[in-house]
Amino acid sequence: MTIAQQSGLNLMPLPVSAQPGIGSLGVDSSFSAAFTGHTEPRLERAGERFLKQLARQTGLPLFLKPVKTAKATLVIQTDHASKEIQDVGEDESYVLEVTATGAKLTAPTPLGAMHGLQTFLQLVDVSPAGFAAPAVTIQDKPRFPWRGLMIDSARHFIPLDVLRRNIDGMEAVKMNVFHWHLSENQGFRAESRKFPKLHELGSDSLYYSQDEIRDLLAYARDRGIRVVPEFDMPGHSTAWFVGHPELASGKGPYDIERKWGIFDPAMDPTNEKVYKFLDDLIAEMARIFPDHYFHIGGDEVNGKEWNANPKIQAFMKAHGIKNNEALQAYFSGRVQKLVTKHGKIVVGWDEVLVPGVPKDIVIQSWRGQASLAQAAKQGYGGILSNGYYLDLGWSAARHYAVDPMSGDAASLSTQEKQRILGGESCMWAEYVSPENIDSRIWPRNAAIAERLWSPQEVRDPASMYVRLDFVSVRLEWLGLTHRTALPHMLQRLAGSASPAEFAALHTLTEVMEPVKDYTREQTAPAVPTSSTPLNRVVDAVSLESDAGRRFGELVDQFVASACHDPAAEARLRAQLTSWRDNDAILQPLAQRSFLVKQVIANSQDLSALGTAGLAALDAIVKAQPAPDSWKEQQLALIDQVKKPKAQLLLIPAPAVQKLIEAAAAGGACSAPKP
Amino acid sequence: MTIAQQSGLNLMPLPVSAQPGIGSLGVDSSFSAAFTGHTEPRLERAGERFLKQLARQTGLPLFLKPVKTAKATLVIQTDHASKEIQDVGEDESYVLEVTATGAKLTAPTPLGAMHGLQTFLQLVDVSPAGFAAPAVTIQDKPRFPWRGLMIDSARHFIPLDVLRRNIDGMEAVKMNVFHWHLSENQGFRAESRKFPKLHELGSDSLYYSQDEIRDLLAYARDRGIRVVPEFDMPGHSTAWFVGHPELASGKGPYDIERKWGIFDPAMDPTNEKVYKFLDDLIAEMARIFPDHYFHIGGDEVNGKEWNANPKIQAFMKAHGIKNNEALQAYFSGRVQKLVTKHGKIVVGWDEVLVPGVPKDIVIQSWRGQASLAQAAKQGYGGILSNGYYLDLGWSAARHYAVDPMSGDAASLSTQEKQRILGGESCMWAEYVSPENIDSRIWPRNAAIAERLWSPQEVRDPASMYVRLDFVSVRLEWLGLTHRTALPHMLQRLAGSASPAEFAALHTLTEVMEPVKDYTREQTAPAVPTSSTPLNRVVDAVSLESDAGRRFGELVDQFVASACHDPAAEARLRAQLTSWRDNDAILQPLAQRSFLVKQVIANSQDLSALGTAGLAALDAIVKAQPAPDSWKEQQLALIDQVKKPKAQLLLIPAPAVQKLIEAAAAGGACSAPKP
Repeated sequence: MTIAQQSGLNLMPLPVSAQPGIGSLGVDSSFSAAFTGHTEPRLERAGERFLKQLARQTGLPLFLKPVKTAKATLVIQTDHASKEIQDVGEDESYVLEVTATGAKLTAPTPLGAMHGLQTFLQLVDVSPAGFAAPAVTIQDKPRFPWRGLMIDSARHFIPLDVLRRNIDGMEAVKMNVFHWHLSENQGFRAESRKFPKLHELGSDSLYYSQDEIRDLLAYARDRGIRVVPEFDMPGHSTAWFVGHPELASGKGPYDIERKWGIFDPAMDPTNEKVYKFLDDLIAEMARIFPDHYFHIGGDEVNGKEWNANPKIQAFMKAHGIKNNEALQAYFSGRVQKLVTKHGKIVVGWDEVLVPGVPKDIVIQSWRGQASLAQAAKQGYGGILSNGYYLDLGWSAARHYAVDPMSGDAASLSTQEKQRILGGESCMWAEYVSPENIDSRIWPRNAAIAERLWSPQEVRDPASMYVRLDFVSVRLEWLGLTHRTALPHMLQRLAGSASPAEFAALHTLTEVMEPVKDYTREQTAPAVPTSSTPLNRVVDAVSLESDAGRRFGELVDQFVASACHDPAAEARLRAQLTSWRDNDAILQPLAQRSFLVKQVIANSQDLSALGTAGLAALDAIVKAQPAPDSWKEQQLALIDQVKKPKAQLLLIPAPAVQKLIEAAAAGGACSAPKP
Repeated sequence: MTIAQQSGLNLMPLPVSAQPGIGSLGVDSSFSAAFTGHTEPRLERAGERFLKQLARQTGLPLFLKPVKTAKATLVIQTDHASKEIQDVGEDESYVLEVTATGAKLTAPTPLGAMHGLQTFLQLVDVSPAGFAAPAVTIQDKPRFPWRGLMIDSARHFIPLDVLRRNIDGMEAVKMNVFHWHLSENQGFRAESRKFPKLHELGSDSLYYSQDEIRDLLAYARDRGIRVVPEFDMPGHSTAWFVGHPELASGKGPYDIERKWGIFDPAMDPTNEKVYKFLDDLIAEMARIFPDHYFHIGGDEVNGKEWNANPKIQAFMKAHGIKNNEALQAYFSGRVQKLVTKHGKIVVGWDEVLVPGVPKDIVIQSWRGQASLAQAAKQGYGGILSNGYYLDLGWSAARHYAVDPMSGDAASLSTQEKQRILGGESCMWAEYVSPENIDSRIWPRNAAIAERLWSPQEVRDPASMYVRLDFVSVRLEWLGLTHRTALPHMLQRLAGSASPAEFAALHTLTEVMEPVKDYTREQTAPAVPTSSTPLNRVVDAVSLESDAGRRFGELVDQFVASACHDPAAEARLRAQLTSWRDNDAILQPLAQRSFLVKQVIANSQDLSALGTAGLAALDAIVKAQPAPDSWKEQQLALIDQVKKPKAQLLLIPAPAVQKLIEAAAAGGACSAPKP
């Protein structure tokens, strides 16, 4: 555990080191900030943003512009400019020294200065004497140079204001790459002036104009964030073929895909016109996106169109291309040359890594750390996304435990390790809308951001959760809606519910999570499409239930105390009682709302959990082993409750199971209740 | 009680009539809307806005543009255009017929069509079989032609996005006048190109550019809302004098006023240059604001600068002007001529109504219904604002009970009554910020909107509150923040509170309201200014506590049942217990947060209320009169609790007093508990 971890500071990501000082720096209406050393308009804007955010956090009427005097409360010294086009591995370090009389932030580049400003914002909190930042000296720099969030804005279109607030969130947790997944079977979302049929026919009019894209790039650059565009090919490209069927391997015509999954359409790697088209398109997009990297996708080609096309089969035979994998390698090689020609470095998913691919590409691994390590051994750069898929509904702790340098990567040589550039969380968008996307990304993404920024030994999930709760609130101050989305969406489900009914709906939904991994399709009541309303309980509930997690912690604490913790017992009893009684309150609402009715089996399960938990608690307190028959009956109930219903899981089930097992084991408590 | 009131429809304002039909109209993804008859771009935009809002309400992926076919689910027939400049008394009526197979909205003008769309949105709710609108035939038109909301954006600057979302709220409840209070001692907020020193020196750079103003006017017109600008003179005008001291009656120099109240500076009514200046300024502003009405303020001149200026005294003597009231009448008469010259009708506060003022002005009464009736008798138009001051913290029911036609107005002749054009709620901005203004206006403003739209006999507060709860949620879907402001602002106060501490803070704050009427200044810990942070509990809590009101209703229900309502007793007991135990949970947080510490006496009071209430409940259930000494002790406690602390009132105090009095009277309950 580092000093930073021991410091009790609510920082996320934790810095490399934090040395506590004496006292604290008060923040009142007279607070000011000044830049010294290298200055540029971007820093000035960062200063204004910082002051605005500080004013919002504190409610103080601050003067919202940086001042010119070095007597400012916070002086930010920047040594020199960063590169005109932000590059991988630029110096992002900073030193922040807060004393009782002032604060000094020092950074070689604006990137470090901006990171330090975010750290300062996290330090400021309400205190007994006013708003204040604790005295501390922080030295900090990132562990990995590539710390990204991918947003799929192709399966569901995500409006610019939603992207912007997520970029604000990235800045707050020091992520520095926005990977923009712009094309898919379900949509081609970037305006092409060279090939306007791409977005005109392939997007249902939901696309980003080139001006809007440029605005977003400037917005991201202002926050020290690179933007890597992805145009996925040769598969995942049905939407391209609506306007340009000549690129495809099948006969067409093509429609925008409305379902989810892996589909047959793929570009024709044997058609020279495809490469001419891609040359022109990449040229156009390379001009718009200044980043040195260009993502060509390359994942999940099922090869069916290739198999069915005699011309392609003849080409493969003529050129000695043995199978579809080799055909894709041929395609990737050709496309890579085009990308290189336009001055960019290729990024692609695992599948682009086949023998013979040139070394100057970066592999984004969705398959796992093994393939990442393998790539590094072969001399390829790599970024990890396996383990960071936000749409799979994992807990923050589970994402947090995934380390790019663990598994096969741990045994790499120093040189090989340097090829592992970092990682990217991925927000695939089958089930996200502008309304719920924030709650699918945040706050869990902050835990991934810490994994990629902080030293490897920062990995205590308990500390992480304490700080995650804190930063989650702070992220909402930026305009993100991950915490308010649930009550807001519940209002729609609840219609004219009474306050008690609404509270009951909240009690139920706050302990549920959507089914995990890829089971949502399997459990869907009907084949989901891009037109399926995302207005059900499964779309509203958090991907990680805070209330469920806290109940589990409380049960663990109680069981570990061998029931000598009467306060924990009282809290458990209150919680279980409220669950037991909840269904009766909710039933009338279920009769009035078809959306509430969909979760009435879950509601009955929660009631049953409450009853079972109370029975277990009574048995534990009696300190006599409950009969085997009771235990079997209760565990059968738990098994039943654990089965997903309405695509939802009831998170407290395993914790109640622990209580039942403790009861069956005879409890351990004979101390009198207070 | 009208049929509409009996219908159980969650409409606000209630329509003139509503005849229930059979069944309901399902709203699913195939929903469409079409305009027939008169069409114009404004209606097309209203249709898009309607569809977007319907999609937001339901979470359905609707096609977001009106269609061209008369087979649409909802057909909107508009007969003809409304006036190019929206006028007072235009036809705003509509008929909305919803059947199980479709809906038809018919209106003479776009104004009525837009009102009908809002009614349809309120009808759609979740149902057992999906989203649906009940079959009904609604005939509707407003009672008053002038239904306004005044926002003071001068004392505190209110950004345009905040004004826009409030205009959205006005549209939802069918208000049609936004009265924009643009100048004050504390700020001159409109860009003047003719006299740029007005906004440059008089606004701290917080003003609306002319382009921004024009955008807002278009935004309001799109929603059937007139905008009446107010430039307050000859008093309330210190900010003008910072750049133009030559207009004032004193010597100057002047600074922007930072305090609240009535101040000495006033324009010099004896200076011809003042009228030349106002002629030019009114000419400029009259060109920007197309509305036929122009508000010149005219309130609260204390006359001190006039008394102290020998030149003014000499002028009064020379012209036979007897006193300051007459001097102001002279000024108002001169200004009125200028306003008339530029094609507008003057609106002014009560004070402009002095003998001899021409009849074509409109009096806005802040003083009361008597002066409104008096004006009407004398032939002047009038609008009522007395009783509708949102900043005084009255309950919705109290505002709702104020009727422009009651009191002295009730005995006016039919002709005189027609001069009473309606009313305006007023949001004076001493204690509002962009963060809390919505919660100071809404939902109470919706009750005033109903008073001004619905038939006079619609006045049952119980029905109003049921519908207000419903519409309040709907208003948040428009982007208003009145419900989320409290938890959001509490996060700032709470810092890194535990969930239990945060819940305790919420429990306390949800039953408190700021002190009422004008006592906030009197109870302020320090002289409040425009720089005082609005981040305290008093700035965060609602002006009307829903939880407090509901507790009061529950106590009434319980006492009325003579304690034969065990469900009510159980709920009371649970509530009182949670209050009793709340302070202990909150105490540790108060030690960490200076803002929470400020309300710790309130927290102790709430605990005491809980204890007293539980004791009363126990006594009631025993059905034996509690001893007089106990009663006296408890009532002394209640008296103590009723005293404001930290400028806050604890709303449940009177209800707990009722329980104590019931207990002292011997209760009435001897039925066994269930």
